[in-house]
Amino acid sequence: MPDSTALNEQQLAEMVARQMYERDNNSHALGIAIDGIAPGYARLSMRVRKEMLNSHGMLHGGMSFTLADTAFAYACNSYNLNAVATGCDIIYPAAGREGDLLTAEAVERHLAGRTGIYDVTVTNQDGEVIALFRGRSRHLPGTVVPNP
Amino acid sequence: MPDSTALNEQQLAEMVARQMYERDNNSHALGIAIDGIAPGYARLSMRVRKEMLNSHGMLHGGMSFTLADTAFAYACNSYNLNAVATGCDIIYPAAGREGDLLTAEAVERHLAGRTGIYDVTVTNQDGEVIALFRGRSRHLPGTVVPNP
Amino acid sequence: MPDSTALNEQQLAEMVARQMYERDNNSHALGIAIDGIAPGYARLSMRVRKEMLNSHGMLHGGMSFTLADTAFAYACNSYNLNAVATGCDIIYPAAGREGDLLTAEAVERHLAGRTGIYDVTVTNQDGEVIALFRGRSRHLPGTVVPNP
Amino acid sequence: MPDSTALNEQQLAEMVARQMYERDNNSHALGIAIDGIAPGYARLSMRVRKEMLNSHGMLHGGMSFTLADTAFAYACNSYNLNAVATGCDIIYPAAGREGDLLTAEAVERHLAGRTGIYDVTVTNQDGEVIALFRGRSRHLPGTVVPNP
Repeated sequence: MPDSTALNEQQLAEMVARQMYERDNNSHALGIAIDGIAPGYARLSMRVRKEMLNSHGMLHGGMSFTLADTAFAYACNSYNLNAVATGCDIIYPAAGREGDLLTAEAVERHLAGRTGIYDVTVTNQDGEVIALFRGRSRHLPGTVVPNP
Repeated sequence: MPDSTALNEQQLAEMVARQMYERDNNSHALGIAIDGIAPGYARLSMRVRKEMLNSHGMLHGGMSFTLADTAFAYACNSYNLNAVATGCDIIYPAAGREGDLLTAEAVERHLAGRTGIYDVTVTNQDGEVIALFRGRSRHLPGTVVPNP
Repeated sequence: MPDSTALNEQQLAEMVARQMYERDNNSHALGIAIDGIAPGYARLSMRVRKEMLNSHGMLHGGMSFTLADTAFAYACNSYNLNAVATGCDIIYPAAGREGDLLTAEAVERHLAGRTGIYDVTVTNQDGEVIALFRGRSRHLPGTVVPNP
Repeated sequence: MPDSTALNEQQLAEMVARQMYERDNNSHALGIAIDGIAPGYARLSMRVRKEMLNSHGMLHGGMSFTLADTAFAYACNSYNLNAVATGCDIIYPAAGREGDLLTAEAVERHLAGRTGIYDVTVTNQDGEVIALFRGRSRHLPGTVVPNP
């Protein structure tokens, strides 16, 4: 039976992710799946649908941003301390296409006091980088999951 | 009958916006309306719905980004030259709430050669700033509206 | 004799700028001059010297950043509340050249609680935009000028 | 005698760095040293001097930016193709102090066509992160070193 701190942090991260996902209507609507979760880390995936395209017929920047931003949210809330984004930036090295299976991997670059910085890389099924996202988070009072 | 260059640029911007909006399923799905359009300028609005909230019960950052990004797209395509985003950044000074009526105003900060920079301010019905967005665009070959 | 609050705020901003400038070795070394100051606002100028060029013979990005960042610092400290930068971004629409007289104008885009956002535009003597800078500030305890 | 392509790329990166550094008056003035160089990679160091402090007595943001920006420049020019910065952003997780020995490590996050993205991490002698910098580069015609 696991009782080490390391395992408990991982279990907590998983519990937080499950509870966040349950009330995450946005992710359900967009078909976003959680493929991996760890303290300070999240990996999500999303299939590009026709309604996610912009008027140029390419993936809408708001959609790749939303996928990256969601991965960021799961990563920065994984310690069960409420965290919100204070700002983000995104670069689009390549265009996403209809039918692409996108993966967003969020890793923690820095966490000190209430402030965190997370880098998210969005790639397609060929490993091509579709977006590079950097998010800045701030912890607010309260926990995501009560009395875990 | 208008035939000045200034008027024609305005008419062209309006025509481009109308045609973009017709095929812009994303904006229709989110209830985004176009409230003002001019060369290098766009003003859009969106009502915050329950499904746009994140798991903290506040407006999902991806949704305010998408509204700002869409205003940016209408502004930078308003010359009828295909333009795409190369990168963006966003800051969230305050949280959006369910029922808020958000306005996104995109203004051109710089345009030289193929590269443009646009600032978008998202405010709520009380004039409070919800998001400050800056987008960088690049013109691609081709026009939005063929033979205007 | 001025005793309105508005005037006092302006006088305070000027006093803060004077005292900051006195101990601002960096600005003296680079030949940065303060051309205008007001609450939440600063306008600085700098002549591009040979030693400010990079190995391509153009203005070093670090130098235009430093000019913009300094304008930002004077603007966000102008209320006589200690403020530090938490992050910045900069875009270089055009290159600076040796001998250029650069002007950096910092304006306040947003200020709420302890957090401020400032936009700085760096132009050359022909009004050409050399850099667009956005800085985020946070107030710390304490004042710049003691007992003003 | 080395004649593999891999070695030649490394040798070319070293030759470019040496020639850039020779005419890099800015780095000499600030005491910036090149501690490591490879294709798409650079590691530089700088000791924080009294004249690099701002009026709060902490490392001037323009100085940590300049160190990071310089590491970025050496990394993105390492292929001997002229590259310039189009934009950058920087976050300051912690303050730099007088006497700190700072290291800036630039790694390539993405390179496709003429556009590159580089992440630079600036740490002090204790491994504390002073700045996180992301630079965007664009290749221009021409080489850094003629006929290498």
